[in-house]
Amino acid sequence: MSSHPEQSAVTVLGLGPMGRALTGAFLDAGLRTTVWNRTPGRETALVERGAVGAGSAAEAVAASDLTVVCVVNNDAADAILRTDAVADALKGRTVANLSADTPGRAREVAAWAAEHGIGYLDGAIMTPTTTIGTPHGVFIHSGPGDLYQRHRPVLERLGGTHTHVGEEIGRAAAYDIALLDIFWTSMAGWAHALAVARAEGVTARELAPFAKGIGAILPPIFEGTAAQVADGSYSGEDNPITSAASTMAHIVHTSEAHGIDASVMRAVEGLARRVIGLGHGTDGFLRVAELLGRR
Amino acid sequence: MSSHPEQSAVTVLGLGPMGRALTGAFLDAGLRTTVWNRTPGRETALVERGAVGAGSAAEAVAASDLTVVCVVNNDAADAILRTDAVADALKGRTVANLSADTPGRAREVAAWAAEHGIGYLDGAIMTPTTTIGTPHGVFIHSGPGDLYQRHRPVLERLGGTHTHVGEEIGRAAAYDIALLDIFWTSMAGWAHALAVARAEGVTARELAPFAKGIGAILPPIFEGTAAQVADGSYSGEDNPITSAASTMAHIVHTSEAHGIDASVMRAVEGLARRVIGLGHGTDGFLRVAELLGRR
Ligand SMILES: NC(=O)c1ccc[n+]([C@@H]2O[C@H](COP(=O)([O-])OP(=O)(O)OC[C@H]3O[C@@H](n4cnc5c(N)ncnc54)[C@H](OP(=O)(O)O)[C@@H]3O)[C@@H](O)[C@H]2O)c1
Ligand SMILES: NC(=O)c1ccc[n+]([C@@H]2O[C@H](COP(=O)([O-])OP(=O)(O)OC[C@H]3O[C@@H](n4cnc5c(N)ncnc54)[C@H](OP(=O)(O)O)[C@@H]3O)[C@@H](O)[C@H]2O)c1
Repeated sequence: MSSHPEQSAVTVLGLGPMGRALTGAFLDAGLRTTVWNRTPGRETALVERGAVGAGSAAEAVAASDLTVVCVVNNDAADAILRTDAVADALKGRTVANLSADTPGRAREVAAWAAEHGIGYLDGAIMTPTTTIGTPHGVFIHSGPGDLYQRHRPVLERLGGTHTHVGEEIGRAAAYDIALLDIFWTSMAGWAHALAVARAEGVTARELAPFAKGIGAILPPIFEGTAAQVADGSYSGEDNPITSAASTMAHIVHTSEAHGIDASVMRAVEGLARRVIGLGHGTDGFLRVAELLGRR
Repeated sequence: MSSHPEQSAVTVLGLGPMGRALTGAFLDAGLRTTVWNRTPGRETALVERGAVGAGSAAEAVAASDLTVVCVVNNDAADAILRTDAVADALKGRTVANLSADTPGRAREVAAWAAEHGIGYLDGAIMTPTTTIGTPHGVFIHSGPGDLYQRHRPVLERLGGTHTHVGEEIGRAAAYDIALLDIFWTSMAGWAHALAVARAEGVTARELAPFAKGIGAILPPIFEGTAAQVADGSYSGEDNPITSAASTMAHIVHTSEAHGIDASVMRAVEGLARRVIGLGHGTDGFLRVAELLGRR
């Protein structure tokens, strides 16, 4: 086995859109990058750019101190990692698993790694493939602080900001789940809005600039309401949840009048109505977070 | 009746948080502003700032060529406007109704106004109360173009950007419904994310900076995907809907494992699964807009 100075080589397992983007960024940063993907063929363009295509996952992980795994979820990660050959090859090395999954599943993979003498970091990528290798990528990591510090120079070659959110291995996934909750719920609102607008004769291109405006008001509202939630003060002084619920009913009604499924907004309105029913109608909508959190 | 130069006076009906913000901006702009609200007492601070408190809605609308109505919805607007006294006083004058409601309800109020010889504009406010009177307010208007042009100088005293989105009176409400669909669905995602994060030991303040980051990536994604929807090309090359659905399942699972209601994300995942079931698993999530739009 040739020597592998830890900051000049990396292995990437998983060559979906994100794995390919990660590999591209490592190559651009000048790292010796070994790649493998379950389905062959995905590596071709990357090999042309200088990546080393490995014949098996075991061969791939043996090529670097750090292996970055980026597949659809931890069932897929398990399918790749949990073979005797791969476990043996990984012994004494480190896996940084950037596949999205639950905190519980991250803990399971970590327990397996510990049993096999494999260093394990969990992580999550919070931005699209186009941000990888640019200052706009956002990466979250969790796991042993010393292990993170050791591999940070390689991970940071992906560009963007990297934050270690804690030693507890499930923590990156907890952030990931919460942030993807915001992301996909918002995207569902956008998809639904496009359908309702179209039914009313408003095109996607007409709606887009205003939708961008709505997107732009969200970050400061997230910040302001986070402070409310932290303090347990859900002021509805500027916008009571009764007013929000009225609007939600309009959306459901208009949507269904056009034969458009309103299941998402019906569920949202249901939460708002429960808050009102509990006597908090003059509070702001974020009181819903408290309702959801009750045991 | 004293003379009412049309660009120096305005009446505001409805003094909830938004009606008060509108009145404040009109006062700051130096307009003679007459106000009325169903429940008395809301006008006190505004009268101290120079507003004229009217004894009745009829008296209020008689004081200005333009009456801005801003109440919870059009049922409330009807309750105020549809009396003989108010209809008589409004004859030959104009109502700009900035209450949120459906396109259908906007058309009904417009029909009533037309029967009574009242000019009618419908509109929507897309930004919070704090933006009113600043460059950050976003207002959408619809209705007869000449009527809009006549009252535009007064409306623009509210600051921000004003867009006339069409002569058809329901059009402002159509935009409003679609944009509020994005807004409230996103807020539901945020409320849910806060609850899930808390259950995992991540506080609102810890999550907030990352949530802001998610908010910041939405506007360009809205823009990019609008083009996809307009072209009917829902490429999932960078992020297939199968990957999104996997993530949605993680969110539902983690949420319910903590006893947190996941009805909203269950509904979102249901839409994604339907798209996949129809054979579009390699498309992007926005294919959901097309699914919803089917008749
Ligand atoms: N794309 C984005 O914008 C984005 C953004 C942030 C985070 N992420 C996360 O990054 C991860 C990878 O995402 P992606 O966009 O690259 O696409 P993806 O569709 O989530 O994952 C595709 C990858 O998973 C592999 N895979 C799936 N099932 C497998 C199994 N049973 N055994 C082995 N490999 C399996 C695929 O291999 P085959 O080619 O053999 O099927 C492929 O390498 C996901 O967790 C995703 O949530 C993606
Ligand atoms: N607040 C915001 O951030 C915001 C942002 C954009 C748009 N908007 C829209 O602006 C409009 C007004 O909202 P808001 O924030 O001021 O609070 P709101 O709670 O939606 O509306 C309160 C106003 O509605 C009146 N009202 C309710 N039912 C009535 C009825 N049956 N008859 C007569 N008046 C009735 C209230 O009078 P009483 O005082 O007598 O109850 C009060 O003047 C809504 O359509 C809202 O969607 C608000």
